[in-house]
Amino acid sequence: MENFTFYSPTFFAFGKDTENEAGDYVKRFGGSKVLIHYGGGSVVRSGLLDRVKASIEKAGLSYVELGGVKPNPRSGLVYEGIALAKKENVDFVLAVGGGSVIDSSKAIAMGTLYDGDFWDFYSGKPIERALPVGTVLTIAAAGSEGSGDSVITKEEGMFKRGTGSDLIRPKFSILNPALTQTLPPYQTAAGITDIMAHLHERYLTNTKEVEVTDRMIEGLLLTMIHEGPRVIEDPNNYEARANIMWAGMMAHNNSCGVGRSQDWNSHEIEHELSALYDCAHGAGLAVTMPAVFRYVYQHDVMRFAKLAVRVWGCQMDYDHPEVTALAGIRSLEIFLKDIGMPGSFAEIGGKEEDIPKLVEALCYGNGRTGSISGFVTLNEEDCAKIYRMMI
Amino acid sequence: MENFTFYSPTFFAFGKDTENEAGDYVKRFGGSKVLIHYGGGSVVRSGLLDRVKASIEKAGLSYVELGGVKPNPRSGLVYEGIALAKKENVDFVLAVGGGSVIDSSKAIAMGTLYDGDFWDFYSGKPIERALPVGTVLTIAAAGSEGSGDSVITKEEGMFKRGTGSDLIRPKFSILNPALTQTLPPYQTAAGITDIMAHLHERYLTNTKEVEVTDRMIEGLLLTMIHEGPRVIEDPNNYEARANIMWAGMMAHNNSCGVGRSQDWNSHEIEHELSALYDCAHGAGLAVTMPAVFRYVYQHDVMRFAKLAVRVWGCQMDYDHPEVTALAGIRSLEIFLKDIGMPGSFAEIGGKEEDIPKLVEALCYGNGRTGSISGFVTLNEEDCAKIYRMMI
Repeated sequence: MENFTFYSPTFFAFGKDTENEAGDYVKRFGGSKVLIHYGGGSVVRSGLLDRVKASIEKAGLSYVELGGVKPNPRSGLVYEGIALAKKENVDFVLAVGGGSVIDSSKAIAMGTLYDGDFWDFYSGKPIERALPVGTVLTIAAAGSEGSGDSVITKEEGMFKRGTGSDLIRPKFSILNPALTQTLPPYQTAAGITDIMAHLHERYLTNTKEVEVTDRMIEGLLLTMIHEGPRVIEDPNNYEARANIMWAGMMAHNNSCGVGRSQDWNSHEIEHELSALYDCAHGAGLAVTMPAVFRYVYQHDVMRFAKLAVRVWGCQMDYDHPEVTALAGIRSLEIFLKDIGMPGSFAEIGGKEEDIPKLVEALCYGNGRTGSISGFVTLNEEDCAKIYRMMI
Repeated sequence: MENFTFYSPTFFAFGKDTENEAGDYVKRFGGSKVLIHYGGGSVVRSGLLDRVKASIEKAGLSYVELGGVKPNPRSGLVYEGIALAKKENVDFVLAVGGGSVIDSSKAIAMGTLYDGDFWDFYSGKPIERALPVGTVLTIAAAGSEGSGDSVITKEEGMFKRGTGSDLIRPKFSILNPALTQTLPPYQTAAGITDIMAHLHERYLTNTKEVEVTDRMIEGLLLTMIHEGPRVIEDPNNYEARANIMWAGMMAHNNSCGVGRSQDWNSHEIEHELSALYDCAHGAGLAVTMPAVFRYVYQHDVMRFAKLAVRVWGCQMDYDHPEVTALAGIRSLEIFLKDIGMPGSFAEIGGKEEDIPKLVEALCYGNGRTGSISGFVTLNEEDCAKIYRMMI
């Protein structure tokens, strides 16, 4: 195991009706003038936004608001949020929504206390300070409610880039599984896929003998495999929603990823797809993961075989472990299709002729010099082959 | 799943040589005058204490020290520590040792900022404030490095009582697996048993459909079953030590126990044994757990069968699930004996004639009125039977 540090100081309030405590938590964690940041109409229509506002008023705090966050959140709205927060002397950002809203809130939080362009932090500059952020989560997916990560898309050129720091870990996150019951099945499934991707990206490691985190990841994947189809079948199944919601947080707060190298190539390859085609991140991952895994499994056949046996219940072929490894990847693919995710490039709007452009953005964007690295280093040719495998 | 809150703001620094960063972390978390609290001679002989002191001096901080913590830490030394901390205007308590040293440090931390008798907090009074605590862990066992719990034994009457609050969660914990390599095998095995007990106490729940935490507990137990015998066979196996050390923290920071009722009857029953006979807590648990589990398994046969199948690899007897349930308990018992733990009352110094006294202290101590409650409520007769099953 490699040396590591781990710090997850987010306070979690989990369960029914917990959104009504939002104001108390903002107060507890030092906020007095809040920017409430949210996305489209669903948090308005459902009455959630009103309940959160009432809770903030009840706590004796004031607020301004900014809606309009879209999936794959854009830099334009972040600039708008920063200007608003500066003008109104906001001292706390409260995200009411899913990963996109939270990531946008984190960007506003760091940009408000910075004189330069916030995009600097998404171009490699370390974050030095940020306003405190809290969240009321409405989608189990990104894990941003318990992580120090944020991903934003710059409109000019549609670059999707990420940043991270303990400074932007939420002070508190409110997780009410009932709020996820109204999600359309496709969004629910995309969230499930994103959670499973966060687990796979950590499982694919070159660090030896990390049994404790292997076992935790396997346990969380087994939970997703059990609970995923249950919520697709019955969107109102609170217990299944609750299990998925906690698994989604645990999958990405990195307690199951410490002390080991991680992959993240599937995420990088997918980011170019959702940046260009504006598909749901989870849907892009559903198409990306099986292709990546089939391309790289020979790098460590036994790791893929272990995943296949322990997580997918495949029988170990002791004479031909690669048979087991591939059976596991096939099981993942079948599972994702079964919960309603796309299985091909075309289904997410992909076009074969775009592949050179995707590869270029992937392998030369963000300061890269012709390859991406993770479980395996992939050069332009590798990446082009992987995109072609998705067709 | 039940509503819950979860807050684990401890900063973890994990890996080789991390004890040399102790001074930096004390400073980062607000300390300037440190009470270094430790146990017997091993931290002195090994040079660990000197390394920690050097690190504190290097950070420009000052310290006083108090050694002498014994397993099952006593109130007498806590009073001594509180007097010293008050006299020297200490603003940070640094525990260098295992669970006993950490629990004693937490007691000193809360007692120093309190005018009354610190024992009040172990008699039901809520903790209102405490000095910050940091730890340099030398034994993977109690999980106190990541928990808000503390257990102290009062010399008068040898009462062993616990308390808990987020206020006494360590600000930071330094976990260097190499520091555990010099532990005698018996202590290593007792630590393994304690960790496995923390997992069992959470697994035995009456809350339905908590798959995510079931799976996390199972994963951590599987890790212990894999790594435990490896460190008993080779005490210098750093990787196995590292896996156990992280599993020990995860087993008790409660991320795998949220949203569900828990048991803790085995701990309560054992606490009377280690209070009276001063045996190692883990050794007492090795004798206690199989007896308790055999006594209560019929309360939820399928839960014990699930544990047997998923963790111990037993075959499910679909016609007679109780056969599988009992096979799992038997597997635990065999495992504990195999790593060198005692299997009977006599081996931990127990005497049959003490049973009425044990039952009296258990069922009427700490404000109880004739029973203990957890997975199952156990009255005096039940507890007497369980103690007799250990003979």
